[in-house]
Amino acid sequence: MWEQLAPVGRHPASGGYRRYAWTGADAELRSWFQAQATARGLAYEVDRNGNQWAWHGDPTAGDAVVTGSHLDSVPDGGAFDGPLGVVSAFAALDRLRATGRTGGRPLGIVAFADEEGARFGLACVGSRLAVGALEPDRARALTDAEGVTLAEAMRRAGHDPASLGPDPDRLARIGVFVELHIEQGRGLVELGRPVGVGSLIWPHGRWRFDFLGEANHAGTTRLVDRRDPMLGYAHTVLAARKRARLAGALATFGKVTVRPGGVNAIPAQVSGWLDARAPDEPTLTELVDGIRTTAGERAGRDGVELVVTRESATAAQWFSPELRDRLAARLGDAPVLPTGAGHDAGVLSAVLPTAMLYVRNPTGVSHAPAEHADQRDALAGVAALAEVLEGLVCR
Amino acid sequence: MWEQLAPVGRHPASGGYRRYAWTGADAELRSWFQAQATARGLAYEVDRNGNQWAWHGDPTAGDAVVTGSHLDSVPDGGAFDGPLGVVSAFAALDRLRATGRTGGRPLGIVAFADEEGARFGLACVGSRLAVGALEPDRARALTDAEGVTLAEAMRRAGHDPASLGPDPDRLARIGVFVELHIEQGRGLVELGRPVGVGSLIWPHGRWRFDFLGEANHAGTTRLVDRRDPMLGYAHTVLAARKRARLAGALATFGKVTVRPGGVNAIPAQVSGWLDARAPDEPTLTELVDGIRTTAGERAGRDGVELVVTRESATAAQWFSPELRDRLAARLGDAPVLPTGAGHDAGVLSAVLPTAMLYVRNPTGVSHAPAEHADQRDALAGVAALAEVLEGLVCR
Repeated sequence: MWEQLAPVGRHPASGGYRRYAWTGADAELRSWFQAQATARGLAYEVDRNGNQWAWHGDPTAGDAVVTGSHLDSVPDGGAFDGPLGVVSAFAALDRLRATGRTGGRPLGIVAFADEEGARFGLACVGSRLAVGALEPDRARALTDAEGVTLAEAMRRAGHDPASLGPDPDRLARIGVFVELHIEQGRGLVELGRPVGVGSLIWPHGRWRFDFLGEANHAGTTRLVDRRDPMLGYAHTVLAARKRARLAGALATFGKVTVRPGGVNAIPAQVSGWLDARAPDEPTLTELVDGIRTTAGERAGRDGVELVVTRESATAAQWFSPELRDRLAARLGDAPVLPTGAGHDAGVLSAVLPTAMLYVRNPTGVSHAPAEHADQRDALAGVAALAEVLEGLVCR
Repeated sequence: MWEQLAPVGRHPASGGYRRYAWTGADAELRSWFQAQATARGLAYEVDRNGNQWAWHGDPTAGDAVVTGSHLDSVPDGGAFDGPLGVVSAFAALDRLRATGRTGGRPLGIVAFADEEGARFGLACVGSRLAVGALEPDRARALTDAEGVTLAEAMRRAGHDPASLGPDPDRLARIGVFVELHIEQGRGLVELGRPVGVGSLIWPHGRWRFDFLGEANHAGTTRLVDRRDPMLGYAHTVLAARKRARLAGALATFGKVTVRPGGVNAIPAQVSGWLDARAPDEPTLTELVDGIRTTAGERAGRDGVELVVTRESATAAQWFSPELRDRLAARLGDAPVLPTGAGHDAGVLSAVLPTAMLYVRNPTGVSHAPAEHADQRDALAGVAALAEVLEGLVCR
């Protein structure tokens, strides 16, 4: 399976993956998923929100056990974030079938659409729509860097955007969801364990900081006459880092746009995107409020206007404690870990018992080409997932 | 003339102009220039470097008087930077002809190619090539944001890039060059005068600061494990401003790129472009060295590599003092002003006596849509240019 996936959406210069929702690379990944389902004689379907499903057994029977992840990537992402969970799902099913351990409950494999949000700026679009956590009208109006709406992108890819919306009947037929994922840190490395179980996802969100100044000539405008929005942006980047450190939280500016963006032009506008995460919600709120205050003070001194827009915010998402403990026990007392990263399993945790398995990442690097899982650990992940699924379908 | 130019390359959202070298908008501007020349019965030619010329009288006679400027713009630039000098040149010629004051010397009007460098990152390409200040191979290899080389862009626009290079014979036939330009500051506003004369162009240059870190997941990578290049960039922006203030100089970061540029990805690379200018060269060198040192120290603390590349550097360019005094006297003791902005007249000052006239800009804004000249001041500029040209051709 990996050999077929390896070239899809890989950028020759960076070596990273650019698998954005509803692009040509995405269509190739979707064809791959369908081919995997068909080759195994699994019933294949695409739901109203563009999520792909493959079914062993009758999906309408109810109380299904579902596993899977996503296939899209961040810009220049690694090979494992997402695909490891989908490939492992098919591999685990193969194991269970080979040994006749597929039990009595229907077993589904899912690839959620647009988990990373790399193109339209909002993560977990497919799962959020399904659980009703994202308004269909808002989803359709999401716009990429070229000004293409999600609705238009879906239409071009052959998916009817009019169908978007909550999918309660489908979710009601699912008894439990388990997502396997490459670990996005060094927790398992430090513990010397190949596989761990998730406890919760930190509360997190994205805020856009628009600094609005006045474009002018960089070579002729006196410093005192400037309203340069780059200064407020720079000040805020440093303030965010310092406040996150003091709060035991995370704050990152990974994207910035400048208008007009000429070397010899003082910018009219600088927009930076803050990604902030913290162990609990009060800490996150205090962190972001503090950054906003500092940014506003600096902007005021520079004669620059600041507009802060919360583009997304996700409360702490706890995976099912009962399931977590059961899985950890079944996997030989596997370690239990929190994460700062959002996942479809976190979105589904609002309506379903969900769990996550993490596979060791020797570099700890994530969302970049150096992201990695050793083959032995990937196989340990498949074995663990098969073990867990067997325990669930045969309960 | 303004009515025909107004819509070319104007961006509907920003109201600013995006007239980049060798694009469709540029081709429209070139057609406009040719039509102006043809309508007046002037001999029209394009030189080996893509600069356009219109001649009253015999250009091969030698000791010509030339005026003009450029037609391209920065991103979302104003209507006057460049075009005011070209339109005023044609208007001044019309005045001289109408009153039979065109004298004995040939009179040329020029529009230099790619003055702003908005597309390929290097300013005054057409004039630098002509005087031999830019290697043709280096020019041909300049690359725009889409990876298109200048050579390829010229080819697509119908200009043979093989012809690029020094043009000493053409320049030897020019006795003097006068460029009229919108003022890019408030000097004339404060002096209450519509027209001024240039003294020198501050030494200035562009340096690219590449901060090379490690891409990683913004939601899972501990702060201590990060090598985040955005921090060094931010620190450098603030340090540049402070050092420029202390030095009585100018420093601006108006362009920044981030790779990969995802909201939830710690960047692998942040590249910022420093535009720095100072009243004299030692001050400029000290300023840039200081910024570089501060940037390197911060990058070192963050585990980030810093590479600084000087993309262009221009020494102080003095306009002809004799010409300057003569023009100022002829214009009723017009004020004499330095500028921090580069111009083709500055490039030509290395091989020719050159002078500049500035027209009052009530906002002081430059390189942005708010850049402006009142009609009365623009007409005063035409009158001054005609007066100056008459004095030169009839000497």
